[in-house]
Amino acid sequence: MQTRAYLDWNATTPLRPEARAAMIAAMDVVGNPSSVHAEGRGAKALLERARGQIAAALGAEGADIVFTSSATESAALALAGRGLASAAVEHDAVLAWTDASLPVDADGRVTVTDPARSTLQLANSETGVVQDLPPGLAVSDLTQAFGKLPLAFNWLGCDIGLVSAHKLGGPKGVGALVLRRGIDFAPQIKGGGQEMGRRAGTENLIGIAGFAAAAEAAARDLAGGVWEQVAELRNILEWAVESCAEDVTFAGRGAARLPNTTTMICPGWKGETQVMQMDLAGFAVSAGSACSSGKVRASRTLAAMGFDAAAAASAIRVSIGPGTTRDEIERLAEAWLKARARHRARAA
Amino acid sequence: MQTRAYLDWNATTPLRPEARAAMIAAMDVVGNPSSVHAEGRGAKALLERARGQIAAALGAEGADIVFTSSATESAALALAGRGLASAAVEHDAVLAWTDASLPVDADGRVTVTDPARSTLQLANSETGVVQDLPPGLAVSDLTQAFGKLPLAFNWLGCDIGLVSAHKLGGPKGVGALVLRRGIDFAPQIKGGGQEMGRRAGTENLIGIAGFAAAAEAAARDLAGGVWEQVAELRNILEWAVESCAEDVTFAGRGAARLPNTTTMICPGWKGETQVMQMDLAGFAVSAGSACSSGKVRASRTLAAMGFDAAAAASAIRVSIGPGTTRDEIERLAEAWLKARARHRARAA
Repeated sequence: MQTRAYLDWNATTPLRPEARAAMIAAMDVVGNPSSVHAEGRGAKALLERARGQIAAALGAEGADIVFTSSATESAALALAGRGLASAAVEHDAVLAWTDASLPVDADGRVTVTDPARSTLQLANSETGVVQDLPPGLAVSDLTQAFGKLPLAFNWLGCDIGLVSAHKLGGPKGVGALVLRRGIDFAPQIKGGGQEMGRRAGTENLIGIAGFAAAAEAAARDLAGGVWEQVAELRNILEWAVESCAEDVTFAGRGAARLPNTTTMICPGWKGETQVMQMDLAGFAVSAGSACSSGKVRASRTLAAMGFDAAAAASAIRVSIGPGTTRDEIERLAEAWLKARARHRARAA
Repeated sequence: MQTRAYLDWNATTPLRPEARAAMIAAMDVVGNPSSVHAEGRGAKALLERARGQIAAALGAEGADIVFTSSATESAALALAGRGLASAAVEHDAVLAWTDASLPVDADGRVTVTDPARSTLQLANSETGVVQDLPPGLAVSDLTQAFGKLPLAFNWLGCDIGLVSAHKLGGPKGVGALVLRRGIDFAPQIKGGGQEMGRRAGTENLIGIAGFAAAAEAAARDLAGGVWEQVAELRNILEWAVESCAEDVTFAGRGAARLPNTTTMICPGWKGETQVMQMDLAGFAVSAGSACSSGKVRASRTLAAMGFDAAAAASAIRVSIGPGTTRDEIERLAEAWLKARARHRARAA
């Protein structure tokens, strides 16, 4: 029996060994970072070291890092009550607080008219499309880009960035807000004075240690060219598919994309069916973003790019990572093309 | 050199071995609980198993458990915008959203007049004083009681309970809301449909697995009588101190208290000085709750009990746990009495 191939890295990544080791080490740190005794100071030192590692990995030296429980919580803290403009390609956690009025072109590129009153993701989770961020942007969701693209927050020109640990090899349930120096927001979770009074609650020390170690390792891998190999595998998949299945479209392929992501639209074959068939064949892929995949509904991202409901409902996303092998990609292409042939035979 | 004695369990507890093992096991679970493929379903199964373990440990079978990042976040979700009445003995995370108008007696007991419009903690973090919860209470902070007192949420008669992992041997950065069946609240963190739409954001799976294992082990220890031994050690400490230091008062000693907590008020000797001297002598104790101990300010809990500012400022809390030994308690009593003698000699 073949082992399973996990090809859904944009939903969540396997935990990196560096994160695992840092988390296990942090399990021995007894104190509460808010306590003044030696145990508390030890915990605080670990917390502040992690903050520095994440700032360095993000190119955000001198910016403030506020730890949260997810990029979703970061979005709520940065966006709630502000009425910023967004585009329909944003994640649900951003759309929940914004007015999705910005235009999107057929390749998924967004036009921002008033940056100071807008939010724009750096990269899309479904298509991988990368945006040019306009200077002076209020908020940017960096979740999918962090760890996959060279990134220097201090040069992006935006006030607030949203990031998450579990998209770059850290644990689920840890995120952060990155604030350009001098930028602040109204606290929503109040109580103790943690995180400089910006976000109360004892910090998730073990998870934060894992986030920091993962971010540091991800930055090192990125500099080492690991993602160029990932892009090559993604491209091999697309070439294999298009050489045999001429009716397939790759959403956003005309734009700059993340190196690891492809969304394949195969008219007349429901994305959810494809996901189930690939799951049975041993491949984890997705139809749309994980957070909303319980819901049966076409992708808002694809609809915004001009795909009709039938096309948007017949998409699957394959998102890979540094752990993905050429063998996995070749097996997926073969299994998917076989399943497509069966589907067409039944439909005929 | 003596090893240090960690006697600040109400601030945070050492991670239990059961929690550590469960967290390390959860590190191998790759999927996102919201994904539909096998990896996602595996993650979801772990999440739901943890939810069941926590419900069982809490005596909350049939109630809804909503995972959060802390009891502080749980308090914000349960309390913000409702204007419930509270007493000044509550944690800052509760006081942030409530009107501290309920009367407190000299032993720290609170009188509730309108339970449906009130919140009342089950046990106080500083004094350990345990409250009789009136039937029909809107919200109760169970954070300090969970794991230390026999507790059946379904028999408490309150609508919503707030709990935290790191007070009972689980990791920091994980909490939950417990909702009596039929009770709901307005979501504040929106985005994906996680936690039945009540709290968006990918769940902290590793931390939640640790919380569940710790809660299960804590319930087993509680049933096994472990906390009776803890109470004996706490009582030995109080007897040792009062036999040599007649001016010391133990806050709330006339009320039912948690088995592990004592707050000793030693007039004329600042609590912060005591904490520092004990820290240098190898003992981690605290002055007030950890979350607010960065701030130089007298305890609101002690002030509400009628202690004047000087008395409230000369208190230290010793909070112990199942890992505490008789030797540690005897050494603390000796070190504290010696330091007190030095303080009195200097003051004379």
